[in-house]
Amino acid sequence: MTPPTPTPDRPCVVIVGGGFGGLHAAKALRRAAVEVTLVDRTNYHLFQPLLYQVATGALSPANIAAPLRAIVDRQQNTTVLQAAVVGFDLDAKRVLLDEGDAFPFDTLVVAAGAKHSYFGRDEWERLAPGLKTVEDATRIRSDILLAFERAERTDDPTERQRLLTFVIVGGGPTGVELAGALSELSRHALRHDFRRIEPGDAHIYLIDAGDRVLSNFDESLSANALKSLERRGVIVRNGERVTAITPTDVTIEGPQGSQTLPTETVLWAAGVHASPLAKMLGEASGAEVDRAGRVTVTPTLHLPNRPDVFAIGDMANCAGADGKPLPGVAPVAIQQGQHVARTIANRLHGKPDKPFEYRDYGSMATIGRSAAVAELGRFRFTGYLAWLIWLFIHLMQLVTFQNRVLVLTQWAWNYVTRDRSARLITAVPEEREHIK
Amino acid sequence: MTPPTPTPDRPCVVIVGGGFGGLHAAKALRRAAVEVTLVDRTNYHLFQPLLYQVATGALSPANIAAPLRAIVDRQQNTTVLQAAVVGFDLDAKRVLLDEGDAFPFDTLVVAAGAKHSYFGRDEWERLAPGLKTVEDATRIRSDILLAFERAERTDDPTERQRLLTFVIVGGGPTGVELAGALSELSRHALRHDFRRIEPGDAHIYLIDAGDRVLSNFDESLSANALKSLERRGVIVRNGERVTAITPTDVTIEGPQGSQTLPTETVLWAAGVHASPLAKMLGEASGAEVDRAGRVTVTPTLHLPNRPDVFAIGDMANCAGADGKPLPGVAPVAIQQGQHVARTIANRLHGKPDKPFEYRDYGSMATIGRSAAVAELGRFRFTGYLAWLIWLFIHLMQLVTFQNRVLVLTQWAWNYVTRDRSARLITAVPEEREHIK
Repeated sequence: MTPPTPTPDRPCVVIVGGGFGGLHAAKALRRAAVEVTLVDRTNYHLFQPLLYQVATGALSPANIAAPLRAIVDRQQNTTVLQAAVVGFDLDAKRVLLDEGDAFPFDTLVVAAGAKHSYFGRDEWERLAPGLKTVEDATRIRSDILLAFERAERTDDPTERQRLLTFVIVGGGPTGVELAGALSELSRHALRHDFRRIEPGDAHIYLIDAGDRVLSNFDESLSANALKSLERRGVIVRNGERVTAITPTDVTIEGPQGSQTLPTETVLWAAGVHASPLAKMLGEASGAEVDRAGRVTVTPTLHLPNRPDVFAIGDMANCAGADGKPLPGVAPVAIQQGQHVARTIANRLHGKPDKPFEYRDYGSMATIGRSAAVAELGRFRFTGYLAWLIWLFIHLMQLVTFQNRVLVLTQWAWNYVTRDRSARLITAVPEEREHIK
Repeated sequence: MTPPTPTPDRPCVVIVGGGFGGLHAAKALRRAAVEVTLVDRTNYHLFQPLLYQVATGALSPANIAAPLRAIVDRQQNTTVLQAAVVGFDLDAKRVLLDEGDAFPFDTLVVAAGAKHSYFGRDEWERLAPGLKTVEDATRIRSDILLAFERAERTDDPTERQRLLTFVIVGGGPTGVELAGALSELSRHALRHDFRRIEPGDAHIYLIDAGDRVLSNFDESLSANALKSLERRGVIVRNGERVTAITPTDVTIEGPQGSQTLPTETVLWAAGVHASPLAKMLGEASGAEVDRAGRVTVTPTLHLPNRPDVFAIGDMANCAGADGKPLPGVAPVAIQQGQHVARTIANRLHGKPDKPFEYRDYGSMATIGRSAAVAELGRFRFTGYLAWLIWLFIHLMQLVTFQNRVLVLTQWAWNYVTRDRSARLITAVPEEREHIK
C-alpha cells in the first residue's frame, strides 16, 4: 500500500493500537500539524472495563465498542489503518505490517496493550480463557451458559455439581467483578429458567494468591469487597494458587495443602503480559524489558536513545513518583497518550520535552447491584454510593453518546428486573468442541 | 437424561424448534393439561426478519434474540432443552437427540425451519453465505466491513473495485432488504470513514432470476421497490442467474449472455431448503417430501397416518386455499403453531381436529430509510407510510419489551445520524482465512 506522502512541515505520526492510550494520543493530535495514522488489528475501540458485563450477558459487544473510523471520521489529519503490526525497523523508521507491507514514520507511538499471562503455563489458555477481547467475552458467555444447560441435561449428580462449579483465578478488579456478576447471573437472572437444577446453587470460587482481594485498594475496601462477595455466595480463597488445570478440574494449593475442584469452567483474571511488540521494541532499541514483558521508557515516555519512538499504556514500564512502575490501568494509558500528543506538538514548536506525571484520581471496582468500592483521592466509598459513582463514571467514559444511551437503558432494565437478556450461546460448535 | 415422568392425564408434548412456529405452539399450550418440552439447538428465539440489520451493523444480535428459557420461565408446564435433534423413532414415540439421548413424546410438533439452499451447488455455501443464524449475520457483517477495509488498504485500482463490488443473489424480501441496507451503509454510515476510497462508489448488484423483484407482491409494488433500489444506486439484474462463484468473482447468465463480475463478497438470498428433519419425518412415516425438502402434511397439519406428529412452518408443505403450498413466512408458522396448540388442547376434551386456515394479513418489505412497500389486505402502501407501518409492526413483534426499547433507540439514532454503530469486525481470524 502507498503510505501518505509527508510534506516537510507535516511529519508522519504512526500510532500502533486503538485502545485507551493510542486513541487518546490520536484525538489529542487533532490540531497538530502532523499526519496521524492509527493502526489497529480490529476496527473498533473497546471499552475493556465493561467486558465482564458482556461475558455475563448484561451488555452486547457493540454497546462497549465504537468503530475507530467513526471516532476520528471528522479529524482530517488522521487515517485509520486496519492491519496487524508484526515488527519494527527503527533505523529505517518503518513499522512492519502483515502481508509484507511497511509503513514509514517520523514519530512512532506504540500502545499495543497487554494480554493475559499464564506464568509460562500457556497450555492453560485453552482451558481457562481470560477476558481481553470481544471474542474472549462471547466465548466466556457461551461457556458459562452452556455449563448451566449441560447441568440441566445431565442425570449424574456429581457431573451436575461439577458443571455448576465456576472457578475464577485472580482477585483483582476483573476477578472480583466477574465473580460478582456471575453470582447475580446465577442467583437472579437465571432463577426461574431451569426445571431440574437450581442455578443459585452454583459454586463460584474466587482464587487469589495474595492475602486479600483488590490488594491495590485500601484494606478497609478489600474487607468490604470480601463481605459483599461472600454475601453473594462467592467462596473467596486467599493465599492459594492454581497448580494444575485440566478439562475436568482445577487444583489449588494453599496453606492448608492442595485441593482439586471438579469444574467445567475456569476463568483467568490472574495476570497480564505486555504485547510482544514491547519485547520487539526492546530488542530493536536496546531498551530494557521487565518480567511482565513491558519495555522501559524514559520519564518523557520514549525509548532510551530513541526520542522518536514512544511506548505507552500497559506495555510500557514507566516509573511513577514512588519509583515503582505505574499500574496497567486505563487512566495511566489515557494520560500518557495525551502527554505524548502534547510532546509531539511541542517539538514542532521547538519546545523541550516534559516528563510525564500521572495524576491518580483513584480507583474503583463494582461487586454487583448496589455494591462497589471506590477510592477517590483521600475519600473512600462503599456500597450504594460507590456503585452510583462507578455507574456514572463508566457511563461517561464510553466514547459514543449512542453507547451511553444503550448501556444506560440496559442497566436500568437490569436493575428493575434483575434480568440479563444478552445471554446468547453463540460461536460455532467446533470452537466449543472441548466442552462436549 | 431422565425425561419428565408423564402422568396419564398429562401427555408429553415435545416441540422441536424454538422459531416462530415452535415458540408460538409452546406459548399457546400454557394453559393446556400437558407437559411441554421445547427442544432447540440454540438457547434463544431469533427474530429472523431483522437479521439483515445485524449483518449491516444497525443492530446487535442480542437485540433481536431472546433466551427461550426467559420467554417461558413462568410457564410451569414447559421445559426447555438445549439439544440437537438427530432423528425420530416414531413407532417407539421417541425423538433422538445428540449424545445418544432419546426423548419420549405422546404428541410431537416439529418446527425446525429451513436453511438456505444452493440448488445442489453446496460448494457455494462457503463463498456466498446466506442469512439464517446469528453466526451468519456476524460473519456477513465482518465480510462486508473487511471488504471496505481491504479496499482502503490496496494500491491496485482493479483490486479496489473488485473489493467494492457486492453481489446479492435473490430478489425476494431478504435480498431487497439486504441490498437497500448495504447501500445506506456505504453511502451514509461509512461516508466520512475512509481517506483513500469513496464507500459510496461501491457497486451493489442484486441478481434475480425472475422478471421482477419481490415477485410475491403486486406488480406496482415491485416497480416501486425497483425504483427505490435504483435511487439508492443498487444495480438490479432481473432474468439473470448465477452459474459460477469463485473466491474472486461470480458469473451470471441472462438474456444478454454471460458476464463475470469480479467481487469479494457474494451474499445468498436465493432460496431455502427445509431442515433435514423434514425428510427424516417423510422417511419414517411415508409422507411425501417435496422438491424444497418440505414434508407434506394434512389440512390439520399432522403427517398422514400419524395424527400424533405435526410438522409446521417452513419445513411443512401445507396447501393453502388456492391449493398451492403456503409460503415460508413467519405469519404462517405462527398461526400454524397456534393452530396445533389448539388441536392438542381440543383432543384432550375429545373434540375433533379442525383444518388449518391461513389468514393472510399481508406482506411487506423495507428498502431503506423512509422507503418500504406493504400489502395489507386490499390496501397497498409505498414510501414513508409503508415504512412507518413496517417499523411499527416489526417493533411490536419482537418478543421482549427490552428488545423493543433497544431496537427503537437504535433506529431513532440511526434515523437522525444515519450512523450504524454496531459495525464490528469480529470472528476469529482462522474463520476468515479464505478472505485474506
